Amino acid sequence: MVSRKEVASLAGVSEATVSRVLNKVGPIREETRLRVEEAAQQLGYVPSALAQQFARSRSGNLGVILPFVPKVHLFSTYYFAEILSGIGEAAKQYGYDVLLIFREPSGSRDYARLFLAQKIDACIVLGAQNVPEEKTALAELQKKGYPFCLVNQRFAEEGYLSVDADHHAGSYEAVKHLIDGGSRRIAFLNGPDVFSSSMDRMSGYKQALANAGLAYDPALTLLGNYSRKSGVEAAEAVAALIRSGQVDAVFAANDRMAIGLMDGLRVHGIKAGVDVKLVGYDDSEGSVIVSPKLTTVAVPFYEMGRRAARRLLAPEKDGLAQADEGLLPVHLIKRETSS
Amino acid sequence: MVSRKEVASLAGVSEATVSRVLNKVGPIREETRLRVEEAAQQLGYVPSALAQQFARSRSGNLGVILPFVPKVHLFSTYYFAEILSGIGEAAKQYGYDVLLIFREPSGSRDYARLFLAQKIDACIVLGAQNVPEEKTALAELQKKGYPFCLVNQRFAEEGYLSVDADHHAGSYEAVKHLIDGGSRRIAFLNGPDVFSSSMDRMSGYKQALANAGLAYDPALTLLGNYSRKSGVEAAEAVAALIRSGQVDAVFAANDRMAIGLMDGLRVHGIKAGVDVKLVGYDDSEGSVIVSPKLTTVAVPFYEMGRRAARRLLAPEKDGLAQADEGLLPVHLIKRETSS
Repeated sequence: MVSRKEVASLAGVSEATVSRVLNKVGPIREETRLRVEEAAQQLGYVPSALAQQFARSRSGNLGVILPFVPKVHLFSTYYFAEILSGIGEAAKQYGYDVLLIFREPSGSRDYARLFLAQKIDACIVLGAQNVPEEKTALAELQKKGYPFCLVNQRFAEEGYLSVDADHHAGSYEAVKHLIDGGSRRIAFLNGPDVFSSSMDRMSGYKQALANAGLAYDPALTLLGNYSRKSGVEAAEAVAALIRSGQVDAVFAANDRMAIGLMDGLRVHGIKAGVDVKLVGYDDSEGSVIVSPKLTTVAVPFYEMGRRAARRLLAPEKDGLAQADEGLLPVHLIKRETSS
Repeated sequence: MVSRKEVASLAGVSEATVSRVLNKVGPIREETRLRVEEAAQQLGYVPSALAQQFARSRSGNLGVILPFVPKVHLFSTYYFAEILSGIGEAAKQYGYDVLLIFREPSGSRDYARLFLAQKIDACIVLGAQNVPEEKTALAELQKKGYPFCLVNQRFAEEGYLSVDADHHAGSYEAVKHLIDGGSRRIAFLNGPDVFSSSMDRMSGYKQALANAGLAYDPALTLLGNYSRKSGVEAAEAVAALIRSGQVDAVFAANDRMAIGLMDGLRVHGIKAGVDVKLVGYDDSEGSVIVSPKLTTVAVPFYEMGRRAARRLLAPEKDGLAQADEGLLPVHLIKRETSS
C-alpha cells in the first residue's frame, strides 16, 4: 500500500500539503496541486480523500436525466436546449459540471444507481412521464434522500421538488384571445397526457371555453407528440374540420406542432392567419422567423432550468435552495397568425 | 478498515458475489447488485473495485468541453445542439454518459485536470480557438496521452485527432453559385479567424472569386461573431454598400448571421432575395422557416459529433476508432434568397 509520505516525497512537498490537496482544503497553488495529484496517480495512491469522497458521495456533477430517442436531435429542440442552457448557467455558478444521462426508452429507470455509483450529487429529471417505471424510480430517489428536481412536470400527490410554469393560465389566455377575436370553434392539438403540462393545457382550454359559454367538443381535440412531424400529420384532419365549417381556429400545445401544422395546411390550400387563426405555445425562435409570425405563449424555460439547478446546488445560507417560488408565469405574445 | 466479509454478511451474499458486483464482472441480478452496493456504502467500505477504477482512470464519462458565455443560450444554437445530439447518440451506443464542462471565458484551461480528477475518460473539445491558452491546454493533453478529439477545428501543425467538414469547398460552392447567377460584387460576412472554419471559408470565397476572374476586395469583407445580433449589426454597412452599387450579393458564414442580416436589411428597406442575393451557411432549422427561404450550405454537424465520439469510444476491434475519414462533405442547398 502506497503511503501519503511516499506521495509527499515524490511531489517534493510536506505530508500536510498532500492532505490539503487531496482533501481540497485551504488555498493551494495550482502548480503544487498538479504536482501532488500527478504523484498520487503515478504511485497508484488511493488517498483518504477518495475514501472520504466515497463516504460523502461528492462527485461535483449535477446529473440531468433526459429522454433518448434514436435519431431525434434532442438538443435541437427549443424546449430542451433552453432548459439545459439555464441548468448550465447555474451549474457553472456553483462550480458543478453537468452529467447528461440518457434514459433507456424501455426497461428499468434506475436513477438511484447514479448516486450509489457516485456519478452525481444531485439530479434534474427532464421529460419525466407519469408512467409506473418513472414513478417507481422517483419514489426510490425520494426514499433514499437523494436530491432531485423535476422540471415542467409535477406529480402532485408525491410532493417532489419541482419547477414548473403556469400552463393552465397560459392556455386559458391563448384560447381566450382567440375567443375575444371572434373565434367560436377552436380545435386543440395537444400532447400526450403522461405530461402534466399537457393536462394543464387541457384544463386551461376547457376553462376558457366554459367561461365564454362555449361547449367543449372532444371531436375538436387532436393528439400529437410535440414533434413538428405530428403537426404536419394533424393537418389532414384539421383541414377537413376547417372545410366543413366545424373549426375556425386552432390552438397547438407547442410551436413545433403549430409550425408543422402551418406547413401541412398549406398543402391543403389553407393559410394560417388568413383562412384559420392559429396560436402556438413556447415562443421558440421558430415562432418569430416563420411567416406569418406565430402568436404564441412565452414560457421561461431557461429560467426554469436555472431555478431547478439553483434549488439543488445553492448553499443553504443563500436561501435559494429552500425558496419554492410557485408556478412561473407565462404570457401570451400576439403576432400575425391570430390577427 | 471494513472488510469484504462484513459487506457480504450485511448484504446476505457470498464474498465472491461482493467482488463480482464491485468489479462489475459477470451477470448479476439487479436486486443483488443493489443490495451489495448499499451494504458497501452503509459500511463505508472502499472496495478494491474503487482502487482499480482509480488505477484504470475509468469514469464511464465522455467529457465535452464547451464555451461559456453568460446569458447566451448555447444549446439553443443549431451548431452546438446538433453536434451534441450526435455525441449523445454515440455515447449512448457505447455505454458512456456525457459530462458537459464549460470552459472559463478567461483564465487557465486546465483540461488535463479533468482526467487527473477522473471525471472523464476521454473528451471532445468544441469551439476550440487558435489562441495560446487553448494551444497550451491541448498540448498538455497530447503530451500526457489523454484521448481527445476536436470538432470543426484543426490545428494542422499539431496532428491532433479532429473531425471536420470541408468548409473551403462549401464556401467555394456558395460563392460560385452567386457568380453563376450573375452576381459580381459579393460581400462576405465572416466569423473570427481564431476558428479554422472561418479561415477555410475565407479561402473558399477567395478561390471562387479568383476562378471567375474577380478581384478580392477587402472592403467587401465584414467581421461578425456567428451570432444573430452580429448579423443585424452588419446591416447598416451592408445597406450602404448595396445602395452605392458596390455590392449585389452577400455570403454569410452562418445562417444566424444571415437571418440577422435579413432582418436588419429590412429596416433599411432592402429585401433579401429581391434587392440583394443572400447565401447563408449551416442549413439550420431557421433557414427553412424564414421567409424568403434561405439558400445555404448543409453541414453534417450531427454526424461530426457522432464520429468524434465514436473515434474516442469505439472498441479497437470495430476499426472505427482508427478510421480517419477525412473532411466530411458539405453541400449547397439552393432556395429563395439567391434565385
